[in-house]
Amino acid sequence: MPNRSVFFLSDGTGITAETFGHAILAQFAVTPRQVRLPFVDSPAKAHQAVEQINQAAAREGKPPIVFSTVVDQEVLSIIEASCQGLLMDLFGTFVAPLEQAFDLKSNHRVGRFSQTAQTQAYHNRIEAINFALAHDDGQSARDLASAEVILVGVSRSGKTPTTLYLAMQYGIKASNYPLIPEDFARQRLPQDLLPYRHKLFGLTIDPSRLADIRHERRPNSRYASLSNCQYEVSEAEAMMRREGIAWLSSTIKSIEEIATTILQQVLPQHLNY
Amino acid sequence: MPNRSVFFLSDGTGITAETFGHAILAQFAVTPRQVRLPFVDSPAKAHQAVEQINQAAAREGKPPIVFSTVVDQEVLSIIEASCQGLLMDLFGTFVAPLEQAFDLKSNHRVGRFSQTAQTQAYHNRIEAINFALAHDDGQSARDLASAEVILVGVSRSGKTPTTLYLAMQYGIKASNYPLIPEDFARQRLPQDLLPYRHKLFGLTIDPSRLADIRHERRPNSRYASLSNCQYEVSEAEAMMRREGIAWLSSTIKSIEEIATTILQQVLPQHLNY
Repeated sequence: MPNRSVFFLSDGTGITAETFGHAILAQFAVTPRQVRLPFVDSPAKAHQAVEQINQAAAREGKPPIVFSTVVDQEVLSIIEASCQGLLMDLFGTFVAPLEQAFDLKSNHRVGRFSQTAQTQAYHNRIEAINFALAHDDGQSARDLASAEVILVGVSRSGKTPTTLYLAMQYGIKASNYPLIPEDFARQRLPQDLLPYRHKLFGLTIDPSRLADIRHERRPNSRYASLSNCQYEVSEAEAMMRREGIAWLSSTIKSIEEIATTILQQVLPQHLNY
Repeated sequence: MPNRSVFFLSDGTGITAETFGHAILAQFAVTPRQVRLPFVDSPAKAHQAVEQINQAAAREGKPPIVFSTVVDQEVLSIIEASCQGLLMDLFGTFVAPLEQAFDLKSNHRVGRFSQTAQTQAYHNRIEAINFALAHDDGQSARDLASAEVILVGVSRSGKTPTTLYLAMQYGIKASNYPLIPEDFARQRLPQDLLPYRHKLFGLTIDPSRLADIRHERRPNSRYASLSNCQYEVSEAEAMMRREGIAWLSSTIKSIEEIATTILQQVLPQHLNY
């Protein structure tokens, strides 16, 4: 049991507080107990949160770390007055200098994710998720025209999670299209993809990792055999090189890194909006 | 064209910088031009970033806002020395007090998402995404036992995006199981679900919104008709009420809010880890 607690405190979902805290904690070789306290949006809940934090302080004999994105002034003043934690106050720290820079008062709007469900951007995200599901693994080639990006690569190289991440995070319509042995025999990109070269991004994967993943699906198949995986991966990489398609390996890159690279290479308008 | 630029500057993906910036900007009634500058991880790229920021400063006649999660000291010192933006430095601000609290030096590790692709937590996220896809819409009832949570609700009430978000963000294995007219006629939960009451969470949706969504799929069908949607939603809500299943409406709540509520109600261990 770790002897230090970290709290992520918010009057909204706490997702920003947790992201903020995780980013800072990644700078330290520590493995504290972590507690997310979402929807702390009333004085009563503020007092409950304080009690929970102060109990940890008493138990551990040192101040817990509290990453806060609380916006509500009444809640925040209760935390500030009574909490024995070390308060890392994201909004308090950065909103004041921005009020000056913008020459505007902040609106103390609680919750980055409240009221979003009715916005156009949110609607686009849900649409894009449905699009990714409908166009998974080349299921529906007829609609590649409306995809903003098309991921290519051998089966099980990590295309689907990446398309879903692009949809969920950015509302980007992403398709994926598998490269299969028939394509390697023909030594050509699939016909369906030819009109869309400018939208293609490739994924590759270490052949032995691929064999492991495929074995889980179809144990002891030729499809999953190491020699077949080595063949498919090397042919796919050769094809992407030949066709000038930018690509990354999902063995060593996370979907966040792959998605960001795709934005840089194929969709720069999503980095500059 | 907005006459104020905001930059999200990072030596990693910039996802944390963007999250941080969006959370702060949501406090102001402003719509600036927004630019994400990821992978700024060398002195050469730092100088390029400075140039881009300073061009905006000159063009707009006021300092751009720069939300930074840069960790690399050399990159950061170039930004600090030459950038004419207003620097909101997440790490610089919060790492120093934490070094004191932990009595530890920070490790200046760049990128919350680099090297994650090889971790167990990352592997769990990818597994959970595959699980959500394999168990979408009750496709595979036999494996409900291994789901951590099962979302119930009428067809197209928002279950799939929520299961995918839980998987992607937290590595939570989530299934979804549609409630269909046969269930309403029987006035009972589907037999498959009975052993798993403690894992159930419900979603509902405004009937006219549901009719719109279903019309996109199957125009002018009985399935999509407003009267049928009203019937299904009212029966589903009555069933969830009768069975004591906690539920939310996806019409007014975002997937982030729904996911957080699911953690609170069904999976509190994921808020306290």
